[in-house]
Amino acid sequence: MSNTYDDNNIFAKILRGEIPCHKIYEDDKCLVFLDIFPVNPGHFLVIPKARAVTLSELDEEIAGHLFQVGHRLSKALRSSGLRCEGVNFWVSDGSAAGQEVPHVHLHVIPRWAGDGFGWKIGPTNRQALPPAELVRLAELLRAQ
Amino acid sequence: MSNTYDDNNIFAKILRGEIPCHKIYEDDKCLVFLDIFPVNPGHFLVIPKARAVTLSELDEEIAGHLFQVGHRLSKALRSSGLRCEGVNFWVSDGSAAGQEVPHVHLHVIPRWAGDGFGWKIGPTNRQALPPAELVRLAELLRAQ
Repeated sequence: MSNTYDDNNIFAKILRGEIPCHKIYEDDKCLVFLDIFPVNPGHFLVIPKARAVTLSELDEEIAGHLFQVGHRLSKALRSSGLRCEGVNFWVSDGSAAGQEVPHVHLHVIPRWAGDGFGWKIGPTNRQALPPAELVRLAELLRAQ
Repeated sequence: MSNTYDDNNIFAKILRGEIPCHKIYEDDKCLVFLDIFPVNPGHFLVIPKARAVTLSELDEEIAGHLFQVGHRLSKALRSSGLRCEGVNFWVSDGSAAGQEVPHVHLHVIPRWAGDGFGWKIGPTNRQALPPAELVRLAELLRAQ
C-alpha cells in the first residue's frame, strides 16, 4: 500500500458517487456506510471526506470527529432492530496494521456474546515486559 | 461485567493513584499509560477520568477527545525509538465485545509487518449479505 493518495481507491469512488454504497450518515467532514463484507450484520465504516491514506495525515479535529460520529451511531446499533450486545471500534492505520483500502476508515462493529470475533494473537504478541523496559518505553513516548 | 460502575476496578485505582502505572500523558479529561501485557511493546491505553463503564455513558465530546489524544500520541509510536510501521486503535465496548476492565479504554497498538496480530474471524463472521438485507440494515440505522 502506497502512502501517496490514490484517487482510484474504492472509498474515493464511493465519495465521488461513482460506486454506490448503503449510506447511513453524511456531513461536511465524513461519510458513513455499511461494510458489504461485515464482521457481523450492521458493521459500518466512518470515513473522512479528506484525501488521507493514514490518520497521521488528518487534522486531530477531524480524527476526533470520525470517532464522535462512530460513537453516536454505535448507539443506533444497540437500539435499532439489531439490538447488539456490544460494539468494537477498530482502525487499521498503515498496511503493517492490516489496512487494505488506502483511505482512512474507522470500523464500527456490532457484537453478540459468543459470535467468535476478537483478537488474533501471534506467537510474539502479549509478552509480559520487564519493569525496566516499561520504564524505558514510557520515557520514550513521553519525550515526544 | 456489570454496567454499574465499580469503584474498585483496576483503572479506577490507577486514576486515584492507588496502583502505579507507566504514565505517558494526562490532562483534565483523560489519562494515558502503558498496557503492562501489551500486544506489542509500546501498546498504551487512553482512559477517561469520568466514571463510565461503556462509551454510551460518555459525552460525545469526551469520546472524541480520547481518540484525538490517541491519534496524537500514535505519532510518538511512529517517531520515537520504537519506529513502528502501523498502528491499530481498538475499543471493546461491553463484555460481548471483549471488554474485561469495566472502565472505558481505547487501545493504541504499535504494529510491525508480520507481527501476527489481527482479527480472529469466527465461523459466523464475514458472511456476505444479500443486497435486500443491506438495504434493510441501512434503513434501520438511518432511522435512529
